[in-house]
Amino acid sequence: MSKIKLAVIYYSSTGTNYEMAQAAVQAARQAGAEVRLLKIRETAPQEAVNSKPEWKALTERTQNIPEVTLADLEWADAYLFSTPTRYGGAASQTRAFMDSTGPLWATGKLANKLVSVMTSAQNPNGGQETTLQNMYISLMHWGAILVPPGYTDQSIFQAGGNPYGTSVTATGQGVDEASKKAIEHQTRRLLEVARFYLSGRENSQQVSAD
Amino acid sequence: MSKIKLAVIYYSSTGTNYEMAQAAVQAARQAGAEVRLLKIRETAPQEAVNSKPEWKALTERTQNIPEVTLADLEWADAYLFSTPTRYGGAASQTRAFMDSTGPLWATGKLANKLVSVMTSAQNPNGGQETTLQNMYISLMHWGAILVPPGYTDQSIFQAGGNPYGTSVTATGQGVDEASKKAIEHQTRRLLEVARFYLSGRENSQQVSAD
Amino acid sequence: MSKIKLAVIYYSSTGTNYEMAQAAVQAARQAGAEVRLLKIRETAPQEAVNSKPEWKALTERTQNIPEVTLADLEWADAYLFSTPTRYGGAASQTRAFMDSTGPLWATGKLANKLVSVMTSAQNPNGGQETTLQNMYISLMHWGAILVPPGYTDQSIFQAGGNPYGTSVTATGQGVDEASKKAIEHQTRRLLEVARFYLSGRENSQQVSAD
Amino acid sequence: MSKIKLAVIYYSSTGTNYEMAQAAVQAARQAGAEVRLLKIRETAPQEAVNSKPEWKALTERTQNIPEVTLADLEWADAYLFSTPTRYGGAASQTRAFMDSTGPLWATGKLANKLVSVMTSAQNPNGGQETTLQNMYISLMHWGAILVPPGYTDQSIFQAGGNPYGTSVTATGQGVDEASKKAIEHQTRRLLEVARFYLSGRENSQQVSAD
Repeated sequence: MSKIKLAVIYYSSTGTNYEMAQAAVQAARQAGAEVRLLKIRETAPQEAVNSKPEWKALTERTQNIPEVTLADLEWADAYLFSTPTRYGGAASQTRAFMDSTGPLWATGKLANKLVSVMTSAQNPNGGQETTLQNMYISLMHWGAILVPPGYTDQSIFQAGGNPYGTSVTATGQGVDEASKKAIEHQTRRLLEVARFYLSGRENSQQVSAD
Repeated sequence: MSKIKLAVIYYSSTGTNYEMAQAAVQAARQAGAEVRLLKIRETAPQEAVNSKPEWKALTERTQNIPEVTLADLEWADAYLFSTPTRYGGAASQTRAFMDSTGPLWATGKLANKLVSVMTSAQNPNGGQETTLQNMYISLMHWGAILVPPGYTDQSIFQAGGNPYGTSVTATGQGVDEASKKAIEHQTRRLLEVARFYLSGRENSQQVSAD
Repeated sequence: MSKIKLAVIYYSSTGTNYEMAQAAVQAARQAGAEVRLLKIRETAPQEAVNSKPEWKALTERTQNIPEVTLADLEWADAYLFSTPTRYGGAASQTRAFMDSTGPLWATGKLANKLVSVMTSAQNPNGGQETTLQNMYISLMHWGAILVPPGYTDQSIFQAGGNPYGTSVTATGQGVDEASKKAIEHQTRRLLEVARFYLSGRENSQQVSAD
Repeated sequence: MSKIKLAVIYYSSTGTNYEMAQAAVQAARQAGAEVRLLKIRETAPQEAVNSKPEWKALTERTQNIPEVTLADLEWADAYLFSTPTRYGGAASQTRAFMDSTGPLWATGKLANKLVSVMTSAQNPNGGQETTLQNMYISLMHWGAILVPPGYTDQSIFQAGGNPYGTSVTATGQGVDEASKKAIEHQTRRLLEVARFYLSGRENSQQVSAD
């Protein structure tokens, strides 16, 4: 069968989720997937962005990364989201992108995508679980097939033991190695489930067409 | 003691939550509260708003309602939120406003507010419960005291039996009478709890000052 | 490939979830699956059961249905749970069964199962969404692949529009036809996703073994 | 006014939540409350308890602590729950107790109680947030006034930054000092909110009675 098409979709203001998304992209390419790294459009006013040096710097550093579009969602077989928490929910930038998908949703084209979610927060228990649930709930509305990591690998325990998705405590020191290993596992698992599902679906259609 | 200061804060695109907020305002004024009806700022592009006649019409019809500010949050003793669901979470406009409160949060001024939440969705079970939870989770981050209605009145059963807050199925026909009665109860209950809490706190401080 | 093995696992005290489970079993058999209808063990004291005539009657009527065991969980490729809500979470009988799965969980044998959940409540918004989430969260701990229905069929809208799983308002009048159609769709969809996933996995292993 | 009546209600199998509950009881008594330490009845079979030495030992060590009853729920002004997580939800023992409260709920006697919740899990992100939400959702059904700690004290940040309630990673080494300080704060805050609310309510009734 053809390569799995994976959209790694992130929002980031200070860089943590950008770094998480990059780790996922690398793991996905090594696993043979066709990958698009896509950023979620900024909705905060320019002055808000400019008021925080690291936010401004990241915006400039990532200006060449394409913004995710509905066409990307239609193209991909699987989505891996990475979004910071804000008060226990996904950042409003992420939510604004979710809210913009109505036209695709209405045609049924968001259904049957394989999905998984990652997040970061400033405190270890400051929304690292609830934010992932906030995203999974929305993805259920899309008709997605959810592939959270569970406890399917030792790396998950090393990274804080979050069975819903890799979650990072944003310390300003970058993403630690344990979290990167958990991200790699989460990515590979998502791709494996997607490959099994899609190849089974493809074979089924070939059989029907015979 | 002085009047309870209530901020009724809503986001609406088709009018359901605007009508819900108005019902709450009326009930709150009848109960003797000092009330501000406040709308959440639109973040969607103007062309999106204009593309839907009823969204555009509502925007024009409500242009004189003030947009909620951080000063309103500081002023109020109690908040009653009304927000539509989007894929099982609060509308991104609502989330964008929540996300903007960092400066107030950091000074502790969001703590100890009495809060309650209402919502609407297109389907009876299309996020009417999860959206309220999405909001309550965030309000926990603020240090709020949560006053959901529970099953403290018969009107709640008549309106669909949502113990987390009044939730309306948006049919385009306006808010039904049963829901309005549930909104009135939810509002009065929030105010009563706020009054007891605030008068108790006021008395405590007077005693301390003696 | 061989037939999909589906465990339809329910708890019921007044009969609603038993009827929902039966509708799922019928749809699954028609779709060619190998199905086990399994009830969750009662944990309430006998006098509690006896104190309510319909609870006692159901217990007697279903005494020949086997109680779900860890061996059933290991046997099945896919699980369809049906559980009443209790205060917005799954009934404690259901939770007691979940809690008993530690030995299987620890060996990794609960991972990679395809799962979906249904529920009932006395009020339309009395936990029909939150109960499903309570179950899905736990199933994420198991390493499951989640297959909620989303809005992938018109029957879902007719049955209340719950994208997380079919949910029934328990009126004492049995499960309505609209809900039965939604259950049938949810069951068929779970089986289809399971079939694609499992046949893809089987083919992958054959290729590896060549 | 009279002393606040606080029920500290816990379930524990390995001792973590028992220790958390004890820390809360001590803080509450120092704050002048009338406190009952109450354990939730074991529902696991005796052989399950006996099969784990520390579970058996705790059962024996706590045999003189009274089991919580509906009369306790009616008596108390405020509840502080402490329950371990099981797969991201509260332990089934805790849920079984919740489920048994129907008779009290139906008479409205569970309404208007001030509540807060604590938890523990084996992994830092292994359900420490979702379990608290599972409990708060149920308490909303009871008509409770929710008093999660938010970020109202520095001790919360030191203890992992969980704004929903103190949560402890159960290491088998007992509850750490940082968590104890967070428990003390959570307890004092619950009592303070309860005192303000109740004294305000009492004064209101005296005024009405004049």
